[in-house]
Amino acid sequence: MKYGIVIFPTKEIQDEANSYRKRYDPHYALIPPHITLKESFEADDQLINDLIIELKHIANEMDPFTIHMNKVSTFAPITNTIYFKVEPRQELVDLYERMHAGKFPDNQEYAFVPHITIAQKLPDDEYSDVYSSLSMKKTQLEDQIDRFQLMYQLENGSWTVYETFVFGKEYV
Amino acid sequence: MKYGIVIFPTKEIQDEANSYRKRYDPHYALIPPHITLKESFEADDQLINDLIIELKHIANEMDPFTIHMNKVSTFAPITNTIYFKVEPRQELVDLYERMHAGKFPDNQEYAFVPHITIAQKLPDDEYSDVYSSLSMKKTQLEDQIDRFQLMYQLENGSWTVYETFVFGKEYV
Repeated sequence: MKYGIVIFPTKEIQDEANSYRKRYDPHYALIPPHITLKESFEADDQLINDLIIELKHIANEMDPFTIHMNKVSTFAPITNTIYFKVEPRQELVDLYERMHAGKFPDNQEYAFVPHITIAQKLPDDEYSDVYSSLSMKKTQLEDQIDRFQLMYQLENGSWTVYETFVFGKEYV
Repeated sequence: MKYGIVIFPTKEIQDEANSYRKRYDPHYALIPPHITLKESFEADDQLINDLIIELKHIANEMDPFTIHMNKVSTFAPITNTIYFKVEPRQELVDLYERMHAGKFPDNQEYAFVPHITIAQKLPDDEYSDVYSSLSMKKTQLEDQIDRFQLMYQLENGSWTVYETFVFGKEYV
């Protein structure tokens, strides 16, 4: 089965991201707005059970922290994805690194750039219009992070949460 | 904020339900296939934190159990919802009752009929066609239940998981 690990920001930020995703992101209906910690990876039942124990340990060693998003950015020219850029935080890097080491498959393809996608897979001319308009908007979002979610992918491409890991609150 | 409590069946059953929902359920993109334990209810931060503690206690007192779905049924003439009927189990009734007692708002509108919706809000003539075709299909699904999920609703009507409660595995 295909799994992934994400952080969902609070409702207000999800609503804000969805106001753009609705028009500009074909993945709008497949998953709520999120920060990806670990991209899609394959795991069988045995491996996922081992990883869940690891994820509980990781969650228990974390304290809640605040993230800030102060601008809209893009991955162009690699992909024309547009996103809320999450200001770097050591906690995010730690989470990411622990989920790509040890028993975890090391499926990192790009350097880790924490972000919330708000537009992707647009035709080139639409991309240019949308990016120049969004990048001029004032963005000042802040959120408190205290959990992450292990998800699996259905045949239709959508994602269902399998388990939530709350910082300092997991029973191992 | 609006919350709800559901069980997600395993991927195979979600895929099966989605093969119908894709065509026959306008809520297809809002939430994965699920068994509703508690319909949408309002809660502020204080209340939801209290309820989360309750939900951990409830989960810890449960053992995993098996559910069976042996037929497609309908709520007609009340609504023309078509669903996989989940055979009654005391564990489901217990979960439902505990989530409508004590500190939980008692928002039950109908008698509890555990089910997984596969079609709803169809025009009358389409409903009749779909129901007569689906009700003749052989249905024999079985699933192991070991968790439930607390969700909240976004402004666009879609649902995000806030927390998962695994039977016997919650730290209170």
